[in-house]
Amino acid sequence: MALIIFAEEGIMESLKARILAEGQDLNHGILKVDSFLNHQVDPALMAEVGKAFAARFADLGATKVLTAEISGIAPALMTALELGLPVVYARKTKPVTMTDPVYVEAAPSHTKGMDTFLMVSPEFLRPGDRILIIDDFLASAQTINALIRIVQHAKAELVGVGAVIEKQFEGGRGRLTDSSVPVEALAVITSMQGGRIEFAAD
Amino acid sequence: MALIIFAEEGIMESLKARILAEGQDLNHGILKVDSFLNHQVDPALMAEVGKAFAARFADLGATKVLTAEISGIAPALMTALELGLPVVYARKTKPVTMTDPVYVEAAPSHTKGMDTFLMVSPEFLRPGDRILIIDDFLASAQTINALIRIVQHAKAELVGVGAVIEKQFEGGRGRLTDSSVPVEALAVITSMQGGRIEFAAD
Repeated sequence: MALIIFAEEGIMESLKARILAEGQDLNHGILKVDSFLNHQVDPALMAEVGKAFAARFADLGATKVLTAEISGIAPALMTALELGLPVVYARKTKPVTMTDPVYVEAAPSHTKGMDTFLMVSPEFLRPGDRILIIDDFLASAQTINALIRIVQHAKAELVGVGAVIEKQFEGGRGRLTDSSVPVEALAVITSMQGGRIEFAAD
Repeated sequence: MALIIFAEEGIMESLKARILAEGQDLNHGILKVDSFLNHQVDPALMAEVGKAFAARFADLGATKVLTAEISGIAPALMTALELGLPVVYARKTKPVTMTDPVYVEAAPSHTKGMDTFLMVSPEFLRPGDRILIIDDFLASAQTINALIRIVQHAKAELVGVGAVIEKQFEGGRGRLTDSSVPVEALAVITSMQGGRIEFAAD
């Protein structure tokens, strides 16, 4: 047990160190972490992220991990690998292979200035599925709430929400439409002001 | 050595079995493998894919794995994890964090009926980098050729190309603009006719 706790502390500290060393505050609350999460990805760090989420969510009886393309895929895949579960990523563009009816929900993005539509096929989200949502960021919670609505439409059960980085100052955690499940973030940023990134105390 | 060969044969056989059991021929050469690669992903299978690519490309001295979002991310991430390398995924939509000039190449998609634009930041693709391209499909080679052009513009060096599934009947391998590097596919489909999927002999 001590080892697991130590491993979790290790990932949180190394993740925070990477955010401080490589993260760029682009103003308006936008954090650029393109060097290890959003454009270039560090697979070893993602493997640690997956282990940390798997440890935190091990006892939920999840049957599937759900994320949204694009940047949620790496942490969700590694979490699903650790938990021995399939992972489904909600599509933002309709692939040519998606010919049957799908669940669609809009996720307004203030950083993109437009709605993104998330699509999940009912083939891969069944009534009774126990869904763990993993995404790269918990910020305004618009994306995660859209995923939660899809889970509800599918009559599946949400069992937990994990985000690699939480931008606490955007208040998304309080706006999650399902507050009954555990919500875990591996690095919680309380403020970004003038390029200075502050984390919540563990 | 025998073990590695055995492991590679194992992944090829299990991948082919999954394609036969779950793949759907949507006509016009379109193969739907949404249950384990393109919408729902099987992380354990992707881990095996990563090991198989890592074994085949171990001696190339690659410094980075390059792929295209979205469905290339899972196999590329697992390959990069095995090789101990970072992975870069070319973006198809410009994220708000991509503020500096980027390499952009068009990849015409006959299945989507329009051009897709692939974008890679020069921050993560440097002169001298030795690039291994990994993608989900090698079909018409339009996407992989767009990635190769980006590698060339960046004055990086292409060292290999890997695809989880090759649709040999689309002739992409012969249209790769750089034919000097090893090209590996884990499952090579020679024909899809009337729902019947045929593989090349190993």
